[in-house]
Amino acid sequence: MKAGAAALSGNVHADLPAHGAEEVFETLFANSVCRVERIVSFGHASPPGFWYEQAEDEWVVLLAGTAELAFDDGRRLALRAGDWVSLPAHCRHRVESVSQDAVWLAVHGRADLA
Amino acid sequence: MKAGAAALSGNVHADLPAHGAEEVFETLFANSVCRVERIVSFGHASPPGFWYEQAEDEWVVLLAGTAELAFDDGRRLALRAGDWVSLPAHCRHRVESVSQDAVWLAVHGRADLA
Repeated sequence: MKAGAAALSGNVHADLPAHGAEEVFETLFANSVCRVERIVSFGHASPPGFWYEQAEDEWVVLLAGTAELAFDDGRRLALRAGDWVSLPAHCRHRVESVSQDAVWLAVHGRADLA
Repeated sequence: MKAGAAALSGNVHADLPAHGAEEVFETLFANSVCRVERIVSFGHASPPGFWYEQAEDEWVVLLAGTAELAFDDGRRLALRAGDWVSLPAHCRHRVESVSQDAVWLAVHGRADLA
């Protein structure tokens, strides 16, 4: 992008989607190696028995609401607003529970580049 | 990192540094292509005439406080809590003003990889 290119901007708490049956993912920033997503959850836990196991490193911060993550070693992690978690690639985890109107930011960074 | 590796965690509003003469930068996550930093500012504007012009793409969100960014085309951007800005590599900008106890998250992603 050329020097001085216009900077995009917005507010992470603005324009929240209407309550729905699914979490809502929105990309706020992306380049070839990483992306930042806003995720709005309306009480959407991971389905029973479902585990995330991703090829990318992920860093998430909960900006509003509460949630509980579970890890496959049995650990649980209760999150409140402002709490962040670093989830290395292949770290199996699931969202055990999440409040209404939870707002997350997730940073995904490719893990396969030197 | 091996599967099931422990996930690091913390809170972006916790353990704020004591007020000081300089902004305080803390890396919350980093891999080979991107990193997430917490920046705590105590009213530290950019020095007169100083412009950031970075080789990396940057995405920032102001989590607490207020700030004003300036761009070299004369534009100003007032920020309040929750506001985010995407700053492409080489987008010249400066922090014109910032409140006490401002907390930023900055995501830096390498721009030189295909």
